[in-house]
Amino acid sequence: MDLHRILKAESVAVVEATKDQTTQNHQAIVTLLEEKFEGPIYPVNPGEKSILGLKCYPSVREIPGPVDLALLSTPAKGLKEILVQLGEKGAAGAVVLSGGFGERGEAGKKLAAEMVDFARAKGIRIIGPNTSGIMNADKGLNLTGIKNIPRGPIALLTQSGNIALNLITEATLKSQTGFNYYIGVGNEADVRFHEYLEYLAEDAATQVILIYVEGLGEGRRFLQQASRTTRAKPIVLYKSGRSVKGIESAETHTGAPAGISEVSKSAFRRAGIIEVSHSGEIFPVAESLALLPTIKENSIAILADEGGHAIIAADYLTDLGMRLPEPGKETKEKLATIIPANASFANPVDMAGGANQDPTIFADCAEILLEDENIHGLLIVGLFGGYGIRFAENLAFMEEDAAHRMGKLVESSGKPIVLHSLYDYAKPHSLELMRYYRIPVYDSLEIACKCVESLSTYGSYRQKSHHRDDAFQLHWGTNAVGEAREMIEEALAEGRHVLLEHEAKELFRLQGVPIPQDYLATTEEEAVMYAEKLGYHVVLKIISPDISHKTDAGGVMLGLNNEDDVRQAFQKIIHNTKTYNPEAEIRGCLVAPMAEKGIETVIGTKIDEQFGPIVMFGLGGIMVSVMKDVSFRVIPVSEHWAASMIDEIKSSVIFDGFRGRPPSDKQALIQLIQKVSEIVQAYPLIHEIDLNPVIVHNQGLTVVDARITLSEEHLEKKKRLSMDLGTIEE
Amino acid sequence: MDLHRILKAESVAVVEATKDQTTQNHQAIVTLLEEKFEGPIYPVNPGEKSILGLKCYPSVREIPGPVDLALLSTPAKGLKEILVQLGEKGAAGAVVLSGGFGERGEAGKKLAAEMVDFARAKGIRIIGPNTSGIMNADKGLNLTGIKNIPRGPIALLTQSGNIALNLITEATLKSQTGFNYYIGVGNEADVRFHEYLEYLAEDAATQVILIYVEGLGEGRRFLQQASRTTRAKPIVLYKSGRSVKGIESAETHTGAPAGISEVSKSAFRRAGIIEVSHSGEIFPVAESLALLPTIKENSIAILADEGGHAIIAADYLTDLGMRLPEPGKETKEKLATIIPANASFANPVDMAGGANQDPTIFADCAEILLEDENIHGLLIVGLFGGYGIRFAENLAFMEEDAAHRMGKLVESSGKPIVLHSLYDYAKPHSLELMRYYRIPVYDSLEIACKCVESLSTYGSYRQKSHHRDDAFQLHWGTNAVGEAREMIEEALAEGRHVLLEHEAKELFRLQGVPIPQDYLATTEEEAVMYAEKLGYHVVLKIISPDISHKTDAGGVMLGLNNEDDVRQAFQKIIHNTKTYNPEAEIRGCLVAPMAEKGIETVIGTKIDEQFGPIVMFGLGGIMVSVMKDVSFRVIPVSEHWAASMIDEIKSSVIFDGFRGRPPSDKQALIQLIQKVSEIVQAYPLIHEIDLNPVIVHNQGLTVVDARITLSEEHLEKKKRLSMDLGTIEE
Repeated sequence: MDLHRILKAESVAVVEATKDQTTQNHQAIVTLLEEKFEGPIYPVNPGEKSILGLKCYPSVREIPGPVDLALLSTPAKGLKEILVQLGEKGAAGAVVLSGGFGERGEAGKKLAAEMVDFARAKGIRIIGPNTSGIMNADKGLNLTGIKNIPRGPIALLTQSGNIALNLITEATLKSQTGFNYYIGVGNEADVRFHEYLEYLAEDAATQVILIYVEGLGEGRRFLQQASRTTRAKPIVLYKSGRSVKGIESAETHTGAPAGISEVSKSAFRRAGIIEVSHSGEIFPVAESLALLPTIKENSIAILADEGGHAIIAADYLTDLGMRLPEPGKETKEKLATIIPANASFANPVDMAGGANQDPTIFADCAEILLEDENIHGLLIVGLFGGYGIRFAENLAFMEEDAAHRMGKLVESSGKPIVLHSLYDYAKPHSLELMRYYRIPVYDSLEIACKCVESLSTYGSYRQKSHHRDDAFQLHWGTNAVGEAREMIEEALAEGRHVLLEHEAKELFRLQGVPIPQDYLATTEEEAVMYAEKLGYHVVLKIISPDISHKTDAGGVMLGLNNEDDVRQAFQKIIHNTKTYNPEAEIRGCLVAPMAEKGIETVIGTKIDEQFGPIVMFGLGGIMVSVMKDVSFRVIPVSEHWAASMIDEIKSSVIFDGFRGRPPSDKQALIQLIQKVSEIVQAYPLIHEIDLNPVIVHNQGLTVVDARITLSEEHLEKKKRLSMDLGTIEE
Repeated sequence: MDLHRILKAESVAVVEATKDQTTQNHQAIVTLLEEKFEGPIYPVNPGEKSILGLKCYPSVREIPGPVDLALLSTPAKGLKEILVQLGEKGAAGAVVLSGGFGERGEAGKKLAAEMVDFARAKGIRIIGPNTSGIMNADKGLNLTGIKNIPRGPIALLTQSGNIALNLITEATLKSQTGFNYYIGVGNEADVRFHEYLEYLAEDAATQVILIYVEGLGEGRRFLQQASRTTRAKPIVLYKSGRSVKGIESAETHTGAPAGISEVSKSAFRRAGIIEVSHSGEIFPVAESLALLPTIKENSIAILADEGGHAIIAADYLTDLGMRLPEPGKETKEKLATIIPANASFANPVDMAGGANQDPTIFADCAEILLEDENIHGLLIVGLFGGYGIRFAENLAFMEEDAAHRMGKLVESSGKPIVLHSLYDYAKPHSLELMRYYRIPVYDSLEIACKCVESLSTYGSYRQKSHHRDDAFQLHWGTNAVGEAREMIEEALAEGRHVLLEHEAKELFRLQGVPIPQDYLATTEEEAVMYAEKLGYHVVLKIISPDISHKTDAGGVMLGLNNEDDVRQAFQKIIHNTKTYNPEAEIRGCLVAPMAEKGIETVIGTKIDEQFGPIVMFGLGGIMVSVMKDVSFRVIPVSEHWAASMIDEIKSSVIFDGFRGRPPSDKQALIQLIQKVSEIVQAYPLIHEIDLNPVIVHNQGLTVVDARITLSEEHLEKKKRLSMDLGTIEE
């Protein structure tokens, strides 16, 4: 694979190397030297003889040996010549620090694309541009210019050098672990997130992958690779940029919010990624996952020396969805022999000052609690580590004793302990011991709680089987019906980018969705005829390629009970439509049976810029457009994911029978969502589907209105992606 | 006032003083000595001659001089005798560390109440019990046993000793300010939060009041005092215990959630309290408010050296509701002369590495940005303070220069600067300088953002006038109408604790609410007569003191269009009701006009345990019971607060005319909410009001159903509170 020769490079050229210690090119030579990079380092600068004791070359061409990798900070203009020379030297990659490409609009993107094409032709892959450098600690290959990066099994992928510096600083100051890889992903002009992910998935030394991302170039491929990677090792991700380009929810014609940020949240979760939302949690969560066993069931205990921290921790863990089960009777009896009578034996277990004279009871309680079969992990909060400071000096030795016992307990029980301590700042020996035993220590309750929850979330994910479904893999053209395909092609041939309601419904029928028969009446007579065929009462709706909002145009008449009603309605609709839009081409009126009552829902699809086709579900009316109570999934959706879309919305209880109403047919809804997912794949020319409303009954459902828009442009894009994203059968 | 002699005590007895350094009684003597408490300290213990060089007395009685204050850790049993002796010594207060009172159920509460009564009779007020001690730093009066508490203008009220220790530790490690008072409030058996608040409001040296609260004993008085206090100085509050007793939303008969935690959130906000929700924010927010000028308008700028931190900060501030306006044209032109061309001149201002060679441009940019009239504060994020570490040593001097300039800028501009720095851990001199100039420095982006937002929230609050309304002051019995009062008394005399629908509606009519006339028909004939009087179409509803859910009983028939309809409906309702509950006493059927269509809303009131009467508002159906899209206010509500209740719910846009519907009469709704608030106060025998639904039309509204429950028990409680909480005119 391409990336091996880059990330395990055996020779490095530093182009435009200088003696100015504020530049990264200079700093990179320093870090290469300090970390004893084994291969040759070639500074390149026609103006210098030597830099930091290394011979300096006037140009890449004049370097004596082969070059695997080059560090470049050259502005776009001069890059081509350097790439030519690097090609001659057989280079596999160029780490391009320079900015001024993709992050500055279309011109920059074009420039970057040209550079990538040019480099690829010479066999060179580009890291960046606008990267902060890369590091492979095992090889001493450190081009980041950051010294003393602590070592450990975490691989860092980042789109910000400063955030990386932040994480490295935290690791240095507060942790017993660190990084084996640092990859400044930059603008992803060439090598993308998913390629690094694939490389790291196979790297045995990497146990956790930590990602700071501002924008994903190829979201779909990222999800595909991530869902494979997370079967073996956790991915922790922080996504910024919500306010800039995130939530801006472009309304579709159904009034449905695009909810990009919700789309990625659910997609990341489905791919098994642990997403964190506070910057202070990024490193700790990765650290906990790197050091501790996961939590197998979502039930843990809190152990505290006093109320305050215990209550706050219980609040947070509850908010995070963790269960705090009451300890078993036997457990409580054992605890009662150790902690004072006025302590709390529920969960949190609050020792109520019981440790003030003897902190070894922390270990006693921990042992008892982790023996309880309903408790799968332990969070200790409060002053542990500081009893020797707060109460009496000799208590410190007791704390050390407790630390040894608790440290061994994690290994023997297979259940994790996370420690919150107010005294972390004082660096007491007992906390050093906890860290020796791979128990992480945090001075923030919120962070400690988030770590516990992440251990549980990843633990549950690993135990579930649904992630083994063919997630995120599209199958273009599969299950297409010839007649439906012809209908689409005819519409496009007519210059229409929308299927009319009766066409859209027919397409669904062809695809096996049971939609009640309806008829397109071109005359009043036909309308009456069809109405009598269907039996009263019926609905009339205008059919015109020029009218998308039928109700606004006065083009819908409901509850027609007899011939007179139908005749009047037909005339009125035609009249209204002509008033609304005199230019509108009128195809006639659709005569359809009135839908029975039920729960109004909306199902829609769009092409998301990052992830491609997605499907949205919500209740009709205000719930979608105002309350934004909707769920999204990246297509395809299996039965499991379709069902989860329904359960995810807050208002989903309404389907179980609300205020004496009968329950609704969720199974029919699940099948319809799956069909929508199937149709989007079957017909790559479909741009968006909008089923609004879909009325769900006690048995079955009725698709009352259906709208399908078409796009040839997206077909091109889909074809381009088809090699990786699925196959187009056409 | 009572508390002066306690919080400014000039002599202290430490009862049950020991030589065991792990006990607080011992530690308190240490802190009194270390902080040079000027008055006499009297250890009391019959078993010791002297403790820490101080003469020890066998009992309180044998202390030679008067005693202002005593520190007690005596268990409940032995307390009486000590209180007797303290009474003889003229003591004003006793700080009771002992637990085992209110926190352990009813028996403990009774014990505590007895102790308080006994002490009060002797002229002694109780601090606690279960307090962690008190401190008045100016007096050297430190009974907390915590050494070296950093000094500053923040007064701390806390219900947890460990959380207090946490805040003190943070202040010591990371801040240039600290505490003048520490008050362990404990179980509030006697002295309550609001009394301390009143004392601190008048204390000139206290600039910020910081509260950690688990449960408020007298929420209403707390709000009253807080809303007075916050006109002069900020109150920062953290409330824990959400998961334990908070959200548990007992459903009322309307299915409306009680939402206790939402009630307190809105009440605290109305009282001008800054509530924080992450424990790590508690001290920083208080610190920022103590050190910096507030932000007058909700618009600030972010200044960053690189993208990552800037984007994260922008995300957070946007989530917190802050505006990040684009700098003015002139501002941008000035910035362009200083920072590189590839920098971002929008907001965040991202210097894109421009400071790497010269960090004094931080000060240049800060000066330019704070000159912009649309920018009212500045958040600087990234590496400032660390340029000397990260890039080149001599840059540290430039950072110091910038620190001096930015420090003075806060004073000259009157606009605050908050600094986030990754390098705070390294304690560079430049950051020490920033702190010297009262600029707080945080290593957490989230915390820095929350501080900025709090400066803005308090700044806006101070500028608004609505907080000068008579907030939280109840006026029992005011505006009562004699006829309505009689109706209530008759119902109670009949043994009914509910007003029947027609009575409840009549009460509203008497109070001046325009509710369409309806009639109670006791026979089918009467029903027809009234229906014809009203004109068709009408509604019939069962009236029975034994039926609360009329629809469930089959006791409601809608849309009756003629005599036949009415006759059939009357018979059917009577039949249904008898089937539903054969014991039900049937008063007849209410004949009412059908309500016009509109938006269904719900208005309800309850007696909240902490705050007394509250009012709830939301949309009908699923929006209240499932989506919990409701707003709460403590009664009374002025027009301003009634309007804010409507605006606060997420679905409120529906009133502005949704999907082509005409807008709804918000003003009528505002008036009705105010009337409900008035009625609750006018008739103290009213327990709960439930208007469900209230249909809001384009003009006016219809109260379709009204239910009022009564309670004599609450009257007693209300009367007991009336001295402070309002007046009962009866």
